Amino acid sequence: MPARRQPAAAPSERRAEICRTAAQMIRERGFGATSVNDIARALGITKAGLYHHITSKEALLAEVLSFGMDQVDAEVCVPVKAIQDPEERLRQLVIRHARIVTRAHGAVTQLVDEVPHLPPAARRRITRRMRAYFDLLRDTLVELRTSGRLGEVDPTVAAFSILGMIHWLPRWFQQGRRLTSARVAEEIANLALGGLLRPERAKARSLRIVRPATRRQP
Amino acid sequence: MPARRQPAAAPSERRAEICRTAAQMIRERGFGATSVNDIARALGITKAGLYHHITSKEALLAEVLSFGMDQVDAEVCVPVKAIQDPEERLRQLVIRHARIVTRAHGAVTQLVDEVPHLPPAARRRITRRMRAYFDLLRDTLVELRTSGRLGEVDPTVAAFSILGMIHWLPRWFQQGRRLTSARVAEEIANLALGGLLRPERAKARSLRIVRPATRRQP
Repeated sequence: MPARRQPAAAPSERRAEICRTAAQMIRERGFGATSVNDIARALGITKAGLYHHITSKEALLAEVLSFGMDQVDAEVCVPVKAIQDPEERLRQLVIRHARIVTRAHGAVTQLVDEVPHLPPAARRRITRRMRAYFDLLRDTLVELRTSGRLGEVDPTVAAFSILGMIHWLPRWFQQGRRLTSARVAEEIANLALGGLLRPERAKARSLRIVRPATRRQP
Repeated sequence: MPARRQPAAAPSERRAEICRTAAQMIRERGFGATSVNDIARALGITKAGLYHHITSKEALLAEVLSFGMDQVDAEVCVPVKAIQDPEERLRQLVIRHARIVTRAHGAVTQLVDEVPHLPPAARRRITRRMRAYFDLLRDTLVELRTSGRLGEVDPTVAAFSILGMIHWLPRWFQQGRRLTSARVAEEIANLALGGLLRPERAKARSLRIVRPATRRQP
């Protein structure tokens, strides 16, 4: 019998595996149509074995969403909060968030639509964390406005639109095709920033307004 | 007994009512967790009564998606195809699509995630229509590039990102608050176009690159 070189999966690795598998299934089938049994089978364990880790399907969803927010905190919030320049902070926020979403096992961050299925206390916790993330983004836009670098855009609409571009990524981006995950993240940051920064935008808009509409068809 | 002034709902009105109700329920619960019985009850008819209009839950989903694409065709594609200038065509496409999505009963256009639940033939039909719409958007971006008005953005990433901003709207926009549907549609068009147009963006980007990074924290 070989010596036991491989230790059993650490609790955090087991948590990650359970969360990723559950996220993938819920993403594909919807929360209502996914059973604990399905998830246990996909993990290669019994339903009772899975219940050793979770107390209910709703608790599992809370765990998956919490795991996703932990990733966003560690890989987006903490590093970008250390960036003083709001423009660079915004760019890094978009790039880092987009890269989490496009990587393999990105499904854990794609379950925002399932929040209403959470029990009230878990829903409040997750909503509070999502709100804090939204505020980091929106506050950065407000800071850009204060320093005169934001165009005439509403920071709330802009913040939600940036999140929309990022959250839409898993619906179309595919690993191993023409566009890399890094390239797409950079492109989206360029789109967001290019659409937000003064004074070029304001100029472009006034140009648009004075341009005669002669090129439209009747 | 009063004279029959109100005729029975015309087939097209009945279709709209069924599609909107089904869309709303599928949007809230997910396709897997919504039964034909639930939808019939919400419509105030029997399951048998609903089966008079549809053959299966999958056929109903196909009908809802087809109804949504009919709206996009009539209110976005047809009018914007008549606009010769690609910049104005893009602006109108974004504004018109955003307004469909934000209005009451916008749920019919929010079921794109449910396409995999369609039977193969219906899935091909809907996917073809969605693809034609995507091509209209992407071709407009390519036309802007050809005429030298597009910044250094990838038209595919830009097209999907614009759709992401629009499709994300129902997740945060609420009627009757500070922002009107018209204002939000306009803001999103400004964001998209401001982020796409030359030459101001290119200038902004080079400025960013040469700017010293002294304001970052250590």
